[in-house]
Amino acid sequence: MHDTNRAIAGHDEKHFQSGELVRDVVIGMSDGLTVPFALAAGLSGAVSSTHLIVLAGMAEIAAGSIAMGLGGYLAAQGDAEHYASERTREEREIVERTRDEEEEIYEIFEEYGVERSESASVLEALKRNPTAWVDFMMRFELGLEEQEKGRARQSALTIALSYIAGGFVPLLPYILMGQASKALVVSVGVTLVALFTFGAVKGRLTGAGAWKSAFQTTLIGGVAAGAAFGLAKLLNKM
Amino acid sequence: MHDTNRAIAGHDEKHFQSGELVRDVVIGMSDGLTVPFALAAGLSGAVSSTHLIVLAGMAEIAAGSIAMGLGGYLAAQGDAEHYASERTREEREIVERTRDEEEEIYEIFEEYGVERSESASVLEALKRNPTAWVDFMMRFELGLEEQEKGRARQSALTIALSYIAGGFVPLLPYILMGQASKALVVSVGVTLVALFTFGAVKGRLTGAGAWKSAFQTTLIGGVAAGAAFGLAKLLNKM
Repeated sequence: MHDTNRAIAGHDEKHFQSGELVRDVVIGMSDGLTVPFALAAGLSGAVSSTHLIVLAGMAEIAAGSIAMGLGGYLAAQGDAEHYASERTREEREIVERTRDEEEEIYEIFEEYGVERSESASVLEALKRNPTAWVDFMMRFELGLEEQEKGRARQSALTIALSYIAGGFVPLLPYILMGQASKALVVSVGVTLVALFTFGAVKGRLTGAGAWKSAFQTTLIGGVAAGAAFGLAKLLNKM
Repeated sequence: MHDTNRAIAGHDEKHFQSGELVRDVVIGMSDGLTVPFALAAGLSGAVSSTHLIVLAGMAEIAAGSIAMGLGGYLAAQGDAEHYASERTREEREIVERTRDEEEEIYEIFEEYGVERSESASVLEALKRNPTAWVDFMMRFELGLEEQEKGRARQSALTIALSYIAGGFVPLLPYILMGQASKALVVSVGVTLVALFTFGAVKGRLTGAGAWKSAFQTTLIGGVAAGAAFGLAKLLNKM
């Protein structure tokens, strides 16, 4: 019934991996298409040569891709360490503080109106199998899920490369053309089409609806670029 | 026992809200301190006047804060809609496809080695209380949690303002000084101290460890700024 959610929630290993990949591409490309686009548009409101815009755009892509990629890597690594340390703690606690942990199982079920007499048989089953008990506590008490091995590195690379790929779309007209005001027009056209297409694909893959996501993604890029353009024009006059 | 996690997982309403707030400040400020810093450092490798650097930096802060804030708002709104539609679906299914939903409960428990005879009493208890049954399915089958009302708007504002606050730290020396190479030195000094302090506070609040987080946060900013600086210098020679 809930095929999409089951896939995303990880019931199917293959779907799960591609779901995570899609998520990382979306994270990187959303910002990559938007921020360098807006920065280049903003600078076009202030300088006439594309040289400096390309320079600033490339510096932004380098900075943004590293900040997002490395930031994502360290966050994922931190999650993995947190999972491992909490798991070790649970493993110790079901042995050393068995009564407290039993109490916690009862309390989880009581939140859903299940009486102690009714959840006792589940507790007995979990106590037969300590690994399953720890698995159960990790997921239902702490809400933590184990990551795949190598996830942090793959995620960081995917996010960074998607950011770079996205960032080159708005920048390419500035690289190929000499005059900023003309490159701006081409860049706006190309990037709005790219944002719309990307939003539509994203909406279809995540189940949020192609049209809605296409409009929202284009809106974010447009508003950010418009604000950057206006601000740069204003500052340049000061 | 698991006070930190319980607070983060939302067992305590007050702790939960401040946990979300901290998370949003961290998201916005991490990128706000890093990307404008790296962009300004990169441009310092290519231009001598601070005027253009301030212009590019302000355009970046405008673009980045809007992209992150608006992006976060729409993502949170999408999650809320997804939760509501899945909840409606579950509410319908426990009435119309009761047998399938019962089967799903058994399957959840079987993953943890709990036999059907042992989980039957929990199922009976959930069937007494349809709201609790739906709550249970939302959390344990689908892994979805309900957001607070107004969460999306508050989250978007917090992220955007934190990005702006973070972004002004590296930019201030360029605003106050005329020569890019001198402003760069001050900006690097001020921002590395800010990254280190921010990393330490973040590490303490999230429980990841103050020193470790301080070094990691400083590393990301330093690597991103170094790469942007080198790339801009290289491109400027071409």
